[in-house]
Amino acid sequence: MNARAIDSLLLRFDGKAPLHEQIYASLRDRILKGELPRGVRLPSSRQLSAQLGVARSTVMQALEALQAEGYVVARAASATRVAPELPEELQQQDRPRTAQPSKPVRLSAGARSLLAQPAGGPRLGSAPRAFRPGVPALDLFPVGVWSRLLARESTRASAGLLSGTATAGCEALREAIALHVSASRGVRCTKDQVFVTTGTQGAFEETARLVLDPGEEAWLEDPGYLGARHALLSACARIVPVPVDDRGLDVDAGIAKAPNARLVFLAPSHHYPFGVTTSLARRLQLLSFAKKARAVVVEDDYDSEFRHRGRPLMALQGLDEGACVVYVGTFSKTMFPGLRLGFLIAPQPLVDAFARSRAALASPSSVIDQSALARFIENGHFATHLRRMRTAYRERNEALVEALRAECAGALEPHPSETGMQLWAETKVPDLPLRDAAAARGVESSAISDYYLTPPRKAGLVLGFGCVRPQEMLQGAQRLMQAFEAVRRA
Amino acid sequence: MNARAIDSLLLRFDGKAPLHEQIYASLRDRILKGELPRGVRLPSSRQLSAQLGVARSTVMQALEALQAEGYVVARAASATRVAPELPEELQQQDRPRTAQPSKPVRLSAGARSLLAQPAGGPRLGSAPRAFRPGVPALDLFPVGVWSRLLARESTRASAGLLSGTATAGCEALREAIALHVSASRGVRCTKDQVFVTTGTQGAFEETARLVLDPGEEAWLEDPGYLGARHALLSACARIVPVPVDDRGLDVDAGIAKAPNARLVFLAPSHHYPFGVTTSLARRLQLLSFAKKARAVVVEDDYDSEFRHRGRPLMALQGLDEGACVVYVGTFSKTMFPGLRLGFLIAPQPLVDAFARSRAALASPSSVIDQSALARFIENGHFATHLRRMRTAYRERNEALVEALRAECAGALEPHPSETGMQLWAETKVPDLPLRDAAAARGVESSAISDYYLTPPRKAGLVLGFGCVRPQEMLQGAQRLMQAFEAVRRA
Repeated sequence: MNARAIDSLLLRFDGKAPLHEQIYASLRDRILKGELPRGVRLPSSRQLSAQLGVARSTVMQALEALQAEGYVVARAASATRVAPELPEELQQQDRPRTAQPSKPVRLSAGARSLLAQPAGGPRLGSAPRAFRPGVPALDLFPVGVWSRLLARESTRASAGLLSGTATAGCEALREAIALHVSASRGVRCTKDQVFVTTGTQGAFEETARLVLDPGEEAWLEDPGYLGARHALLSACARIVPVPVDDRGLDVDAGIAKAPNARLVFLAPSHHYPFGVTTSLARRLQLLSFAKKARAVVVEDDYDSEFRHRGRPLMALQGLDEGACVVYVGTFSKTMFPGLRLGFLIAPQPLVDAFARSRAALASPSSVIDQSALARFIENGHFATHLRRMRTAYRERNEALVEALRAECAGALEPHPSETGMQLWAETKVPDLPLRDAAAARGVESSAISDYYLTPPRKAGLVLGFGCVRPQEMLQGAQRLMQAFEAVRRA
Repeated sequence: MNARAIDSLLLRFDGKAPLHEQIYASLRDRILKGELPRGVRLPSSRQLSAQLGVARSTVMQALEALQAEGYVVARAASATRVAPELPEELQQQDRPRTAQPSKPVRLSAGARSLLAQPAGGPRLGSAPRAFRPGVPALDLFPVGVWSRLLARESTRASAGLLSGTATAGCEALREAIALHVSASRGVRCTKDQVFVTTGTQGAFEETARLVLDPGEEAWLEDPGYLGARHALLSACARIVPVPVDDRGLDVDAGIAKAPNARLVFLAPSHHYPFGVTTSLARRLQLLSFAKKARAVVVEDDYDSEFRHRGRPLMALQGLDEGACVVYVGTFSKTMFPGLRLGFLIAPQPLVDAFARSRAALASPSSVIDQSALARFIENGHFATHLRRMRTAYRERNEALVEALRAECAGALEPHPSETGMQLWAETKVPDLPLRDAAAARGVESSAISDYYLTPPRKAGLVLGFGCVRPQEMLQGAQRLMQAFEAVRRA
């Protein structure tokens, strides 16, 4: 090694990392490329220091690191040498800076089937726009209150809270959730049954993995929510599509197709995407089946907080005498999606299994957020916000229906939603091209076809109105009509 | 139905829920219990209103809800009746208030094997104490700065941020992470390869599910980190224990045992629990194996930020020419565990699969936390905090070693840690009873035996010093000695 070689090392430095790290990285590169062959003696730290014009301690730091990782060896009273044990083939070849894969990585069967699913409608940028489904009125969220609570809870956070040992979730939040769902949804539970999740999706996945072996059968509404399908595919379940009619899930059909199913996914109070309510008779029949078959029922109670007509329907969980219902709720719609907080309410016989699997696996949610949310609920901000949102969504629902009737007559027939922040509108043209044509015109939606597991029997779009101000509805509807005309002409 | 029956309904009211909900719930209960038989005609809403002394609209709200769910039917110009289609057997039986399971729920094979694993040392309350492993110095965390950043980021949050559409994580945080690990750990990546997770555990589980089919083989250090084992069991992988010697993972042994393994888990810079560094030769050998076998290597780079001697070692990822390393880091130790933020850095060929599976599955992390953390790093608070913690952990490491040498001579032989916030101390008595005896005296620890997949060849305790003030070390060590004496006598 001569002075020229060392000088040229410096030319590669970018000046960002500390000097000793740059020297380390540069020497390591040369060793790996074989420019400094194995066994060769390096200049002493004193020589290197002089030649590079840096402190000797800096050079020694670099050499120590190289030694700790086995690139160089230093023996007492002798200079440092490049390690003799460096594998020859790696030393000689000139290796590119950027890693080049030889072959694509093989994914698991679960991941492959998951990635083969419809991706849903395209998202045009991150800011919500007309008519992205499932997004609440973020323009009306009380960020000021939330921000004050976050600051206060983080300042007051105890070491116990910061250490995040409560894997089921913060006590105060679990208690607030238990009270809320008991009062508003007729759910029967104690706080010990409540597990905080990162949203409905996390709850679905956690439940599916807890009870389903790969290849076991699970009933899924057909059509039904894509997230539930994804959770089941990820758990390598065999999905059994069960039709939905005007009384909700066809339990007889489910029993005929898969009497030994281990899991049933449904949204009994508000089917996705059609909004059907599962009748009492069907609910009792389902619970009776689940009890006999020892199946677990996952109740997705989405959008139940924003009923536009009448009062919210009670949850299936409240009827469950067989202790087989896992009730799932989320704050993504009632607060904001980026909060990533939801919950599941486990039936008593599964509480211990959820708790212990939680302790072994990933704890999902930020504790300060949980603590602030508990306070937000306790202090009444949540109830106030829900009340305001109910009014807003009722208005936005009506505005969208009016806009569609005014602009899209004969093209899109809206089915006004009784609850929530989206509706579906039926069409006679194929819905996937319609969705894409709308996206090309800057309007987001989801196509009903994507939700079918069997050949679609209806066509239409799911249109969100939660995040759309009433005055923007008309323009969105006009663009939908343009998209419709384009598809019809094609 | 007579007035007495209706009055007695009121006796069950708890006064918390709105009146119409209480009436609804009470009537529903009676219907389900058969106290109001199917087909029976209910008093009119006017009669009920007068008898209960509530507004007629309140009664009607309750009746509408019962009708919507199918408990009662109302026909034009006729009074409301209990639904005739209510299943007989459910109507007649007197159902208990609390759900009684008939049989325990069967869990999945993955969950069963997970729950059969050692639970680790007991946690005595939520507040961290001597010598709980893996807990940082929460007493030194700058809560004031964090709280201000949280408040600011939440006040400024855009609708795009609140809607949480960036499933890989917030752009700003991904960029800050990429810069940090490039400079400090020699990781070669762009921000597009960074995925924000809820911590290392979430990253392990996500990676395992993405690449492993049930029953496929994965190498795991023996002994090794319990969290990695849990992630593999949850993915139904076949775990292949690979021994660790003083040069780290014995790659030859791994190849001999499972040449077709699909995944390799290791902590090359700091083995858990012994702290061994995997030598350069072994690193290159492992990467060469992984490239040929098309296996994915998960590099757990835990505790690398807090090196007590010399400089941090460079990451295995920086040597990876085959694009097979998934690099995993966490903010649980550098910030606080309850934050639930970590990250994985995917090799280029897996970036698309991670991104698309993210879009289909649960988005893990709170966006305001992510945004505040990005700011915390960008503004230099993170670097300052790390620097302070390095000093604190060096002092606490030394204090624990001194305390053990002073109080536990001949009982626990400490191996001073070169990095991180815990060390292991060897003992000659069985370590599981020692850990339990220490817990009985209010001292937490983990037993080395728990980390072995094969019969343990060493015994000892993992002792955390991160959250223990130096003055508390001595008392903790004295109690450990008492525990040792108790186990030796037994």
